[in-house]
Amino acid sequence: MNANVKHKSDIEIAQNAKMLPIIKIAEQVGLTEDDIELYGKYKAKLSSETINKLQTKQSGKIILVTAINPTPAGEGKSTVTVGLGDALHKLHKKVMIALREPSLGPTMGIKGGATGGGYAQVLPMEDINLHFTGDFHAITTANNALAALIDNHLQQGNELRIDQRRIVWKRAVDLNDRALRKVIVGLGGPLQGVPREDGFDITVASEIMAVLCLATDLRDLKRRLGNMVIAYNIEKEPVTVGDLGVEGALALLLKEAIKPNLVQTIEHTPALVHGGPFANIAHGCNSVIATTTASKLADYVVTEAGFGADLGAEKFLNIKARAAGFKPEAVVIVATIRALKMHGGISKNELGKENVNALVNGFENLRKHAETINSFGLPFVVAINKFVSDTEQEIKTLLELCEKHQFPVELTEVWEKGGEGGLALAKSVLQVLEKNEANFSPLYPLSDSIEEKITTIVQTVYGGKNVEFSTKAKKQIADFEAFGWGNLPICIAKTQYSLSDDPGKLGRPTDFTVTVRELKPSIGAGFIVALTGDVMTMPGLPKAPAALKMDVDENGKAIGLF
Amino acid sequence: MNANVKHKSDIEIAQNAKMLPIIKIAEQVGLTEDDIELYGKYKAKLSSETINKLQTKQSGKIILVTAINPTPAGEGKSTVTVGLGDALHKLHKKVMIALREPSLGPTMGIKGGATGGGYAQVLPMEDINLHFTGDFHAITTANNALAALIDNHLQQGNELRIDQRRIVWKRAVDLNDRALRKVIVGLGGPLQGVPREDGFDITVASEIMAVLCLATDLRDLKRRLGNMVIAYNIEKEPVTVGDLGVEGALALLLKEAIKPNLVQTIEHTPALVHGGPFANIAHGCNSVIATTTASKLADYVVTEAGFGADLGAEKFLNIKARAAGFKPEAVVIVATIRALKMHGGISKNELGKENVNALVNGFENLRKHAETINSFGLPFVVAINKFVSDTEQEIKTLLELCEKHQFPVELTEVWEKGGEGGLALAKSVLQVLEKNEANFSPLYPLSDSIEEKITTIVQTVYGGKNVEFSTKAKKQIADFEAFGWGNLPICIAKTQYSLSDDPGKLGRPTDFTVTVRELKPSIGAGFIVALTGDVMTMPGLPKAPAALKMDVDENGKAIGLF
Repeated sequence: MNANVKHKSDIEIAQNAKMLPIIKIAEQVGLTEDDIELYGKYKAKLSSETINKLQTKQSGKIILVTAINPTPAGEGKSTVTVGLGDALHKLHKKVMIALREPSLGPTMGIKGGATGGGYAQVLPMEDINLHFTGDFHAITTANNALAALIDNHLQQGNELRIDQRRIVWKRAVDLNDRALRKVIVGLGGPLQGVPREDGFDITVASEIMAVLCLATDLRDLKRRLGNMVIAYNIEKEPVTVGDLGVEGALALLLKEAIKPNLVQTIEHTPALVHGGPFANIAHGCNSVIATTTASKLADYVVTEAGFGADLGAEKFLNIKARAAGFKPEAVVIVATIRALKMHGGISKNELGKENVNALVNGFENLRKHAETINSFGLPFVVAINKFVSDTEQEIKTLLELCEKHQFPVELTEVWEKGGEGGLALAKSVLQVLEKNEANFSPLYPLSDSIEEKITTIVQTVYGGKNVEFSTKAKKQIADFEAFGWGNLPICIAKTQYSLSDDPGKLGRPTDFTVTVRELKPSIGAGFIVALTGDVMTMPGLPKAPAALKMDVDENGKAIGLF
Repeated sequence: MNANVKHKSDIEIAQNAKMLPIIKIAEQVGLTEDDIELYGKYKAKLSSETINKLQTKQSGKIILVTAINPTPAGEGKSTVTVGLGDALHKLHKKVMIALREPSLGPTMGIKGGATGGGYAQVLPMEDINLHFTGDFHAITTANNALAALIDNHLQQGNELRIDQRRIVWKRAVDLNDRALRKVIVGLGGPLQGVPREDGFDITVASEIMAVLCLATDLRDLKRRLGNMVIAYNIEKEPVTVGDLGVEGALALLLKEAIKPNLVQTIEHTPALVHGGPFANIAHGCNSVIATTTASKLADYVVTEAGFGADLGAEKFLNIKARAAGFKPEAVVIVATIRALKMHGGISKNELGKENVNALVNGFENLRKHAETINSFGLPFVVAINKFVSDTEQEIKTLLELCEKHQFPVELTEVWEKGGEGGLALAKSVLQVLEKNEANFSPLYPLSDSIEEKITTIVQTVYGGKNVEFSTKAKKQIADFEAFGWGNLPICIAKTQYSLSDDPGKLGRPTDFTVTVRELKPSIGAGFIVALTGDVMTMPGLPKAPAALKMDVDENGKAIGLF
C-alpha cells in the first residue's frame, strides 16, 4: 500500500511469515479437530455440525470497517480490518476477523487483492488469492450448470414456454474477460441448441454469489436458489429455478462452498474468509454464515464491506444485517490523507506535495460518510491509515477537523507494524463499544415502496437532491410490485468513486440527481438492484496484465503474484 | 452395474461404507503425515517434496486394465480396476490403484461416473464425483485465463499479428452444454473486444488436461504449456503460449492441481485419482505423475485407460508409457457376456435371453483386442465381469473360446463382493507377472512419418485395411512436418463403439478404410490428434438430466447423485 517507501512486497512478507497449524488457530476460539475440515495445514472449513451447534450461543460484538469513496491513492480498508483484528488480539481480546474472498479475475489482471497488505495480511495469501478452497469455482459451476440446464430446456421442447429473448440468467467465469460480455450462443444448426444473445459476468457478480453470502443455512440456500428468476415466459411472467426444478442440484454443488474458511493473519489472529459478491451489482459483504459464526466464536468480530460507506456499508446495514438478524455495534471509517487530498481536487501526481487546502476540501467526503453511519444509529471511529508522505501540518489539520466535528479519530500504521500499529485504534473502538451507544436500525422499512426506498438511500446516504426514474425503470417498478417483489430491500449499483452517480464528482457533491436507468430482480438474493449509470459486471484485462509477471518455481513457490 | 438384480445403489453402498482417516491409508504405503496435504479427513494430495523424494526408488509392476469396445450393456472397467486392486490388497500385496477423475458434465447429465460401482468403489464417491480437490476447476480456469489473455492481446494491438480467424484455442467448462459449442464472442462494439467465432469444449477435452496428465513435474508442465499452439499469425505460422509469455501464470494456476489425490476404496486399498483427459480428442489416461508415484510407493499398480483397447490402451502404450518412460507388465481385458452378445449382433432388449451364437460372434471383438495387446509385447488376462443374466451355457462357451485361443480368463464378481470377487483374477494376474514374459515396446518409432504412424495404428490396432486422408489432412500433414512436429506420437480421435470409424460396425469389422478428416496439433501435450468422423468435444444434456433428481439434505448429505 505504502508505495513511496522501500518495503518488502506483500508476497515477500507473506512468504516469510511463519504460520501456525490451522488447528492451533481453531483452538484459540474453542474449536477442536472435529470441528474443522482441513485443506492442507493452514486452511480449514468449519463443519456444518459445528456451525449448527453454535446457533444458540450468545453473540459477540460486530465491528464494521468501511471507508471514504475509493481513489487511485488507495485507502487500505482490508489492511486496517486485519490490523484492527490483530491489535485486539494483541490486547488479549477473543477476536475473529471476517473478510471476503478475493476474485481471481482482478488478481490475473491488475495488482490487487483482498488479503490486506504489509504486516496486516491473512495467510496463506497465495492460496487465498488463487483457488483457495474452491468456493468461487463451485459458484461458477453452479451458475453455468444452471445456464446449461436453461438452454437444454429450450432445446428439449421448452415446456415452460420461456421467451428466449427474455432469458436474464447469464453465464459466468471468475476472470476478467471482456470478449465474453456480449456473445451469441447456440449457433451451428438444430443439434447445437437455440441461437440467442447471451453474456458472461464475472463470478462475483453472479446472483449465486449473493445468494450464498446471504443464506443462513443449506435449507435457506436452497430456498433462495429456487427463487432466482432466470427468464420470463411468453406471457412475460417470471420463470424461476424452482420452476425448472434444479435448486436441489445447485445446492448440492454448493454444499462445501457454504462452509466458512478458517485462516490466520501474520500474527495468528483467526480469520474467516468467505464469499465475495461485487459491491455494485450485489451487496459487497462476506457471508452471513461467516459473520454470524465468528460472532458466536469470538467476543469481537471485525468485518468489512466493499468500496465506500455509500455502497458496502449501506448494503451491509440495510441488506445483510437485516437478512442475518444481527446488529453491528460500531463502525470504523478508513481514510488516508492522500485519498482525502484527491477528494479535495488534486491529481495523483500532486500527492507528494503538502496541500492542506485540498485536504480540508476532501474532508467533506469523510464527513458525509460519518453522517451516514450516524443515521443508522451507529457510533464510529475514523482510522487514518498513515503514509510517510503525510506532512505534520496535514496530520495536524486532519486531527483538528475531526476534533471540530467530534469525530473520534486514530492514526494507524498497520501496514508497517501489524497489530502494534493499530493499538490506538483498537483502544478507541473498545471505548466506543463500552459506551454502548449503538442503536442500530436499517434506514427504511421494507414496506416502503421501491421508489421510496431508493429515494431514502439517495438522499440520506449519497446526499443527493432527488431521483429520476427512466421510463423503463418506472415500468419495471410497476411490474415488480405486481409480481410481489415490492417488499425487498434495494441494492443500488452505482460508481464507487463518487457519492453521486457521476464518477467524476469527488469530494462531497450536493444538489445532484441520481438517475435510475433500469432495475434487476435478484429474488434469490432477496433484493432489487437499481442500476445507475453503466455498471460493469465483467471487467477487462489491462494492456499488460499481471499474468505476464506470474510464475511458479520448480518447488511450487509462487512468483510475481503481487 | 448389475442392473437386473435388486441391489443397493452405488451411492447407498458408498455412504454406508466406513472410511479410514486418509492418514491411515497413506501409512499403508509408507507415507507419513508430512507427506500429505489433507482435504478434509478422507482426501489428501501428495506433497511435491514427497513426489520428488520418491523418484530414485525402484518401481513396482504396472497392470493396465482395458476393455472391449464399450456397448450400452456396460462392461465395468473401473469397477474391475478397483476390484482387482482390492483383491491384491486382500492377498496382502502392497498395491495402489491409479484412476482418472470423473468430469462433472456427465455427472450432471446422465447417470455415470468413474469411481467404480457396487462394492468396488473409491470413496468418498460424492466428493470425487463433484468438485473433489478442485483439479478440474483449476484446469478450466487456466484454459479460460489463456483465452481471455488471447482476446486481450487482440484488443490491445495484436503485437503477435494473430489472425483472428485462425485462433485454435477454445474456451472450456466442465459441463455438458451444447449451446456453447459454437458461439460468437467480442460483440458489443470496440470496447468489448474483437468479434470472432469461438467455441467451448468440456474441460476434459482441453489440451491443458492432457498436458497436466503427461507432465513429469512442474518444470515439464511449464515447458509443455509454453509449447501449446493457440493460433496462427497472418503469415500462417503457429503462435504459442510461449510467444504470449503466460506459461508461468498458467503453471501457477496449476501448481496444486498437478499433485495426485490420495483416496481409498471401500476395502481401504490406497488409490490415486488424478487427471482425466478425454479418450477421443486426448489420450484418456490418468496422470503420469500419479501412475509413476504409485509405482514408487507400491509393488503393484492397477490402472486403467478410457474406452476399449483400441483407444485408451493404445494411447496408454504409445503415448503415456513413452512420455513417462515406464513399461507396463500385464494387461487385463474386461468384457461381459452381455456386451459380447451385443457385439454379436443382438440389441439391448434381447440381452435377457440366452444366445450362444451372438456370444460366439461377439467374441471376435475381444479376440482383436487380445491380439492388439500381444502386438505391444504384453501378456494379458481376460476378466469376465459376471452378471446374473449370464447362463451356464454362455459361460461355458466363453471359457471354451478363451481356452481354444489360449487366453487366460477369470470370472469376477467385484460389484457384488468387492476384492473377494476378484481373487481368482488377482491370482491369475500374479501368475502372468511371475512368468515375466512382458517385452513391451510401442507400436511405432516416432521417426516414422505422420502417415506411417496413423497407418500402423489403423492396421495393427483396429484391423483396418488402409487409411484415407482428406485433402485438408494431407495439407496439414505437410504443414505440420514443416513446423517440426513430425516426430510426435499420434492420438486418434475415433468413435469408441467400433474398431472402425463407423460406430455402427460392432464385433470385429474387417476390410474397412479409416478416413482421417483433419489433424489438430496438441504440441503441449506432445501429440498430433488425427480426427476420424465427427468428434464430440462438448457433450449435450439429455431430455431429463440427472440434475433434476439431485439434492442435498439440510445436513449436507448428497441425494440422487447416482
